[in-house]
Parts: sequence; structure tokens; C-alpha cells
Amino acid sequence: VAVNLAAPETLLSVPGVRLAVAEAAIKKPGRKDLLLVELAEGTQVAGVFTKNAFAAAPVQLCRARLRRTAAIRALLVNAGNANAATGADGLARARATTAAVAGALGIDAEAVLPFSTGVIGQQLPVERMNAAIGRAAGRLEADAWLAGAHAIMTTDTVPKGCSRRVRTARGEVTVTGIAKGVGMICPDMATMLAFVATDARLSAAALKRCLREAVATSFNSVTVDGDTSTNDSCVLIATGQAGGPALAPGSRDYKAVAAVIAEVCLELAQAIVRDGEGATRFVTLEVSGARSVAEARRVAYAVAHSPLVKTALFAGDANWGRLAMAIGKAGVPGLDARRVSVSLDDVRVLARGAPHPAYREEQGAAVLARPEYTIGIELGRGRARARVWTCDLSHDYVKINAEYRT
Amino acid sequence: VAVNLAAPETLLSVPGVRLAVAEAAIKKPGRKDLLLVELAEGTQVAGVFTKNAFAAAPVQLCRARLRRTAAIRALLVNAGNANAATGADGLARARATTAAVAGALGIDAEAVLPFSTGVIGQQLPVERMNAAIGRAAGRLEADAWLAGAHAIMTTDTVPKGCSRRVRTARGEVTVTGIAKGVGMICPDMATMLAFVATDARLSAAALKRCLREAVATSFNSVTVDGDTSTNDSCVLIATGQAGGPALAPGSRDYKAVAAVIAEVCLELAQAIVRDGEGATRFVTLEVSGARSVAEARRVAYAVAHSPLVKTALFAGDANWGRLAMAIGKAGVPGLDARRVSVSLDDVRVLARGAPHPAYREEQGAAVLARPEYTIGIELGRGRARARVWTCDLSHDYVKINAEYRT
Repeated sequence: VAVNLAAPETLLSVPGVRLAVAEAAIKKPGRKDLLLVELAEGTQVAGVFTKNAFAAAPVQLCRARLRRTAAIRALLVNAGNANAATGADGLARARATTAAVAGALGIDAEAVLPFSTGVIGQQLPVERMNAAIGRAAGRLEADAWLAGAHAIMTTDTVPKGCSRRVRTARGEVTVTGIAKGVGMICPDMATMLAFVATDARLSAAALKRCLREAVATSFNSVTVDGDTSTNDSCVLIATGQAGGPALAPGSRDYKAVAAVIAEVCLELAQAIVRDGEGATRFVTLEVSGARSVAEARRVAYAVAHSPLVKTALFAGDANWGRLAMAIGKAGVPGLDARRVSVSLDDVRVLARGAPHPAYREEQGAAVLARPEYTIGIELGRGRARARVWTCDLSHDYVKINAEYRT
Repeated sequence: VAVNLAAPETLLSVPGVRLAVAEAAIKKPGRKDLLLVELAEGTQVAGVFTKNAFAAAPVQLCRARLRRTAAIRALLVNAGNANAATGADGLARARATTAAVAGALGIDAEAVLPFSTGVIGQQLPVERMNAAIGRAAGRLEADAWLAGAHAIMTTDTVPKGCSRRVRTARGEVTVTGIAKGVGMICPDMATMLAFVATDARLSAAALKRCLREAVATSFNSVTVDGDTSTNDSCVLIATGQAGGPALAPGSRDYKAVAAVIAEVCLELAQAIVRDGEGATRFVTLEVSGARSVAEARRVAYAVAHSPLVKTALFAGDANWGRLAMAIGKAGVPGLDARRVSVSLDDVRVLARGAPHPAYREEQGAAVLARPEYTIGIELGRGRARARVWTCDLSHDYVKINAEYRT
């Protein structure tokens, strides 16, 4: 029931990246819930992670290893268990699984980044995972991205992946990404789990910059329920297998590759919202006329997180008074309601703080019956703007989350 | 289906206060949806109001009149229409209804405070309201508090009211309050509508202080859905009919009366949560070990507003990992997860950032099956604490708010 979202039919392989999935019975048996990714020597990796103070054990390890190690050679991802709020034991278990990867691939454990997603507060089944790692290590192949997208799903209904090719002076470059996440989605650095790889060659600094810029307007601009996960991780991988020297930031080729990476991140981030738990609507919030981007984002998130707005969107009820309420509660200092205007797609509903004289209820209802639409909010106090994507709050959201563990 | 909340059987009259209700067919016909309150000469009135930038027209009028006028003589309250986001026309209509009250009671329009609650963005039906005001003015009586509590309800399932008597050096003093509100509840000054009256004599300054202190730990410490209404108003009335000089702040009598006023405010505020839209659980959040009260409140509200926490509470699922997530996302600078502990009533679940060794799932489930319980959160970084009351997020919350206008 994802909103205008189909599973990707194929994903392009990225030279220098090999993947394999395996069944580790982490939450329950019967599905491939573990993904192993091997990266060729010379690959650059950059990552951004949750700002949640209960950052999961794998997030803590990722941060430390990315600080210490230039040469990341493998990623290990599991679904079904978040390994968060698990204390020192959780850290030890995460380390043990990366040691198993290191042993299987003949690399250093410090070169392995672990990622977990699932229930918080339970310990990883290390033995079953290590056995699965051994099996996966023998089956690595370039063409397993789609299987990987499946393996990392939790309550996702659709696997999320996206590929692009872009022409550069040194030939074609590929960008492929996969992501998962449909609830506990309000990334404060990146979303639950997203992995984007390219065979372009990028320096460590350029890769970090590229990731930071792509994430700001993609994963960091979507929300399902306002809850920031303990496990948010987004990783950008550049294998450099396309050859040539590293792309210089500012150069035409860098811009072309960075633009495609940003596109892939945006498509994955939007896929997460389209598949948001119980979502029946995909809504773009466009806030303009703000004094700063931060202010515009603050208003957009106040609207996107309001349960009263979200239930009205679910009902297809053009109860725009709730939009006014949410804008007004955003805490923008000195916001003058008499300068605020609101539109639903091209229908103006609120003009400078009062109902638009020409607005008729049927017009608003017609827009809100669409599976996708834009809510435009003009604050009338500056020139900054921001876009945020979100979904509605339906019966199924409550159902899914009331029954998550049962 | 309110949680442990019955309708009050009687409410004590307050000398100096007379009330009447009438049918104005504001949203639809068939119920008494208008309340008129007359206050004796010499009454002191203090009010606190929403911080929402889309503050309703009646809130704007209340603020202006309380600034200008020492002698408030009447309150006019309507349900079914919030008169918010209605522009200049909305202000004119609110003024017109208070002029009708002034005419009917032979007082100045500036001495009338208007209050509205209901749908946002629609204009008041002034003619029908003014006719109802005329009828109500002929029927004022001291003993109509319960009828008043009924009249101001919107989606409330139970009328909310509370009375107390307290002995002072000059004899008994009465405090009676009524309130309404079950959704769009995250008061940033006071809740939807609450009116508390006493016949004690208090100076204007003492009354303001008394209100401010009572509201901080009652109406400003509850949340249903995190949405701050455009119409929040809390009014404290002291008619002085108990006689004697004004109670001096700091005196024994002042403290006794202030304590009872705070009790009435807390009982009304908790009644709002117990009757929260779709609520099946009444939950006290006790955060301790914070560096400041603001920090403790920030954590409490992060938990209280998390849809994932709220749906787990609805399910009675002791998925305490979601509590860790919400504490972690609260944005407390430098919060160390390894010092955070969490309990459910007397059951310790998280001890210094990791699962408590003795915790068993059945213990947590037993607590969460209760209609009322306390979630204790110890941050381990200071001595400040705060309490916040909230409810769960159920199927009925979505149902009520998806169908509100239909």
C-alpha cells in the first residue's frame, strides 16, 4: 500500500562492490535478514549517523572506525534487532560479528562497519549471525543489490533502491543506493539505513562534502512520525573503479556525479515516506517567505508532525484550520499570522491570515483526494524556503505500531 | 471511555458568580452551546492564553481587555466554532457578541471577555449567538456550573469540573473550576478553556501570581497530542465575596487558598488527559536527575509526544526500547545514555543505559496493563525533576480526528 511506489526491477551493479545475503534467524527464522557487502581496496567511505543520545552499538562502532581508519573494506547489516540500549554487552556483540566478517574476508576488523535495525533493547544472536556471515562470504557477487534491499527491510512493504548512470569526461559512472525504513523516521543525520555506492573516484574530503549536501535535502528532509531512530545511518561509498584521478570539488564532473548522488538520495528518502507506516498520502511541504532555512524547516516539521494535521490528511478532509494551528505553534518568534498564506497545490485557502474569499471547500477536498500533493506555506517575512516530505497518519499506523512485537 | 474519570455530580456555587447556558446552534442545532457568566462588581480576573501565533480572535480580545480594564464583569463562551484564523472579520464578530452581552447586562463591552472553541477558520454566527445571549441573560443563577461544564464541551466525552472548600481565618472559601478539551492539547500557557472561580479576596497581582503558579504544574504539564491550540485560555476569578481584606501573598490564608486553587487546576488538567481523544491509559511521566526543570520537561514531552511510545502504551506492549529512543532524541546536550535509567511503576527496566539484569518482560506487561501508571526516567546528571501527564495513541484517536468534521 505504499503511495506511488513500486519495487525496483533491477539495480545496477557498481564495480568494486560485491554483496551477499543470508538467513541468520535474528528475529525469527525464514527470511534472509543479513547483508554482507565487500568493498574493493582503495574504496573511500563516508557516513552520517543519528544524533539520538541512545545511538546504537553499531553506530558507535561506525563512528569510531570511520575516525580511525581510512580503509573500510566491508559492511555488515542485519535486520530484526537494532542493538541499541544494550550497554557494553551490545558493543561486544557488535564487535564479535565484525570480527567474524574480518576472519571470513581476510581483512582487519577495524575495516568492517556494522549496521543494525529492528527491535531496540535486545542482544544480538552472535552465533547464528557468525554462521550466516560464513555462508554469505562464500557467495559474494556484484549483482545482488536488490537482494540486499530485501534483506535489510523490517516493516517496509517495498524494497527501496535506485540506480543512475552519469557521463563524465572519463566515461560513464554508476550510482546505486538502497535504503530501508518506514517508521521511527525523522532522521537527524540520515535515515534508518541507506547505502549509496558509486564507482567514481572521490577524495575522502570530497566524499564527505558530497554526502553532507545530498543528505541535507533528502534524508534530513523527510519525516514519517517525528521519531528519530537510534540507528540512523547513511553511508556513501566511492570505489574509484571508474578510474582516473579523484574528481575535484567544483569541477564539472564532480558536480555531475554529486547531482546524481543527491538524486539517488532524494529518491530513496522519498521512497521511505511513500512506504511510511500506514501511509496513504505522499505530501510535499513547501515553506517560503521565511527569514532562514532553519525557520522554514521548523514550520514544515511542525506541520508534518502534527497528529491533527496528519489525521486530517488521512481523512482527505481539507480542515486547513489545523494547518494554521500547526504553523502557529511552530514557535517562530514574532510570526505575524496576518502575513501567512496557505495553498493546497494551486488552490489558495488562507490569504494573509484569513480565509481566501474565493476558496470553496470542494476545491480543497479535490486536492486532498489526490495520492500526492503539495501544501504551500508562505510566511511573508523573508526569502528563505525549505521543502520537507511527509505522509499521513492512518488507522494502519496505529495498528502496525501497536502490534509490532506481537 | 475516559480513563478513571466520572462526570462531577455537583459543583459548589461561588458567591458573586452567576451562570446561564443557551442554545445558539453554532455548529449544529440541538444542544446548549453557549455559556454566559456574570461576575459581581469588585471581582478580580486573571488570565493566561495560548502562545500559538494564530491566537484566536477571542484570545486577542481577552488579552487587550485584561490589559486595559481592571473590572471584568462577564465571560461569554461558545463551543462549535473557534473563531481562529478568521482575520479582521473574526475580530469584529467577537466584538459584536460581547457588545450584545454588554447590552443585555447593562455593562461596558470592554468588561466582557469572549472565549471560543471548535472548528478553526469559520466565522461566528453572530445573529444566532446574540439571540441566545438575550435568552441566557434572563436566566442567570449561581447554581449552573455543571450546566456550564456541559455547554463548553466539544469532543469531550465527560464534563470536567471540580470544587473545593478551604478554611481560612475569615471563614470558609470556595473554589470551583470547569474546563473542556480533549484534543489539540499541549497547552503552552493554559489548556483549551478553563475557568476557576473563588470567593476569596485577592489583589490583582496576587491573583496573577496564584494563576501562574497553579498553571505551571497543571495545565502546562499535560499533553494529549502535542498540538497547541489556537484558543487555549485559563481564567482565574476571585469575587472577594468571602469578605475581609485581600489575602496577602505569603500569609497562611493565601497559601491555603493558593494550594486549593492549584489542586483544582491539577484535577481539571488531569481530567483533560483522562478524557484525551481515544485515550485508554493515563500515564504520569516523572523525569528526575536533570540539570534543570526545563531539561526534565523536554525529556518528558519528547516521550509523551512520541507516536511510537504512545502506540506501544495503547498496545500495553512494554517495548521500552521506544522509551530509550524518545529520551535519546529529546536533544539534551551531552546526555550520556550510560547514566539513564527507566522504570515502569516500581519495575526497573533500563539500568544505566542497558537492560536491567533482573527485568522480565511479564513484569513490564503487568504494569502496562493497568489503566494508570508512572514511567520514571532518571537522567543521572543533576537534581531537577518534572512531572508531565499524558495518554496513549489509539485507533480511536485517528478515528475521531479523521472524522471530526463529517
